[in-house]
Amino acid sequence: MSAINRNKLNESERETLVRPLLEKGWTITQNRDALYKEFLFKNFNQAFGFMTQIALLAEKYDHHPEWFNVYNRVQITLATHTCNGISELDTKMASFAESIFKKD
Amino acid sequence: MSAINRNKLNESERETLVRPLLEKGWTITQNRDALYKEFLFKNFNQAFGFMTQIALLAEKYDHHPEWFNVYNRVQITLATHTCNGISELDTKMASFAESIFKKD
Repeated sequence: MSAINRNKLNESERETLVRPLLEKGWTITQNRDALYKEFLFKNFNQAFGFMTQIALLAEKYDHHPEWFNVYNRVQITLATHTCNGISELDTKMASFAESIFKKD
Repeated sequence: MSAINRNKLNESERETLVRPLLEKGWTITQNRDALYKEFLFKNFNQAFGFMTQIALLAEKYDHHPEWFNVYNRVQITLATHTCNGISELDTKMASFAESIFKKD
């Protein structure tokens, strides 16, 4: 998966890759350049199932989230250490999280 | 699994059930009556594997941890909402976490 860019996104790439995520409720964290969103599920089973699907992708990308979970709540922060900010890899993982998130 | 007590532990029960956990590095959190420990692993795979085993037990007990993970680090907080403190269920989960934790 090394084809995915780990460099910090420039303004043009942010417009293309980050803006759609902001429209879906992701935010840029206040104290650092990272993507953040809280997901709410019906129960722990759904929340941890969601985490497990992301965990498998994280291993594939060798790129891991920072996340907190309690019962039906999952808070995810995505950033890339090597560029000290948001890279394409983070937007890929955020988009994946959106794609598997079921609201019902 | 309803046989496991969800009542807040009394002093005598704490001596028996909590003390051995404190000796293994668990602490009582400062702002509330809860058990806390940070576990460090070799990598994300081991950390998330550990979380998955605990998640399965959590579903069995219908008792869920509060936890944070980033890469090889897992921080777990265990408390019981219904008694607003530490119950036998929390000590069972903490002991289970210890039993599956591999340091090497």
